[in-house]
Amino acid sequence: MTTERIIEFWFDFASTYCYPAAMRIEKLAATNGCRILWRPFVLGVIFEKQGWRDSPFNIYLAKGNYMWRDLERLCTQLAIPFRKPSRFPRNGLTAARIVCANDGAKWIAEFTRAVFTANFAQDQDIANREVLCGCLEKLVDAPVSVFETAQGSEARARLRANTERAMTLGVFGAPSFISGGELFWGNDRLETALGWQGTEQA
Amino acid sequence: MTTERIIEFWFDFASTYCYPAAMRIEKLAATNGCRILWRPFVLGVIFEKQGWRDSPFNIYLAKGNYMWRDLERLCTQLAIPFRKPSRFPRNGLTAARIVCANDGAKWIAEFTRAVFTANFAQDQDIANREVLCGCLEKLVDAPVSVFETAQGSEARARLRANTERAMTLGVFGAPSFISGGELFWGNDRLETALGWQGTEQA
Repeated sequence: MTTERIIEFWFDFASTYCYPAAMRIEKLAATNGCRILWRPFVLGVIFEKQGWRDSPFNIYLAKGNYMWRDLERLCTQLAIPFRKPSRFPRNGLTAARIVCANDGAKWIAEFTRAVFTANFAQDQDIANREVLCGCLEKLVDAPVSVFETAQGSEARARLRANTERAMTLGVFGAPSFISGGELFWGNDRLETALGWQGTEQA
Repeated sequence: MTTERIIEFWFDFASTYCYPAAMRIEKLAATNGCRILWRPFVLGVIFEKQGWRDSPFNIYLAKGNYMWRDLERLCTQLAIPFRKPSRFPRNGLTAARIVCANDGAKWIAEFTRAVFTANFAQDQDIANREVLCGCLEKLVDAPVSVFETAQGSEARARLRANTERAMTLGVFGAPSFISGGELFWGNDRLETALGWQGTEQA
């Protein structure tokens, strides 16, 4: 008996290292025969519980300066376009709610990459209606309707539930992955997470 | 004209992810034709300036729980022995001062690995005189004398100067590496740092 292998991808559209992870995960997961569960959540809520009212990359200057250079080098290495956003972190709530409200839709991977690209390669405001409808344009028949639905209470509740579940899982940063029953943190752990078979490796 | 390639290895004997980096760096650096400058510093001083009076792995529970499991998996993957220390972080000041007082000595790499192994594989108190003299035993003629010298004001001043220089370099965590004029952070960046040729890659 073979069980379908699954990786949960926990991400926040505002998070810098989620960008390379989101750009890479679909191809890598396919190579590993892994199905992806796309799990947006609100990292800011978790940060607030840790006493941070802003991104730690803004609070801790040396860490922030390093992160931008590291991300730039990483994107060069991975051949992913990068332009430092003029504003950080950006508000990714509506984008996250669009993913929540359309869980399982075939276009989620492509939409997610489009939003991350808008934020981290095109310096666009991913809270903006035109920007998000632009990301949806080639993927769905009625972008405006998808955008409007994501503003509703059900999509909001789903995103809140995701964030609560993330905390239950021990998520404290992004990207995070759940694979083989274990938590993995950071773009650097994507390959390890995808290859993780479960407890027999422990 | 060829210039000798150099990597600065900034580490703290108390730091968990410095352990795999310290165990791996000598062989990897040799493969890359890189000379290592061993640069112990006191991460706690930098953490204090960030407002932390303890390791962030102790302050932030979810992050700490994750780190111990991640380190365990990592050590298994790298075939490095690991036993979770019964006390964390341990006081690595004297060990660091021994390195500072003997900068350039041929036995520094082996001593550094012995101290990290004592801390993270043998659950020993690396501030203890017998433990440190045990680490020095096969490496120097007079372990006690080396231990005593490291308690002196010159060794202390050297470690303080290292920590100040680390801050000047933008170091905010450990391990950190300086290679090709740039800063790299984390055991996960060791290979990238060693392969870094400088600005032409930027």
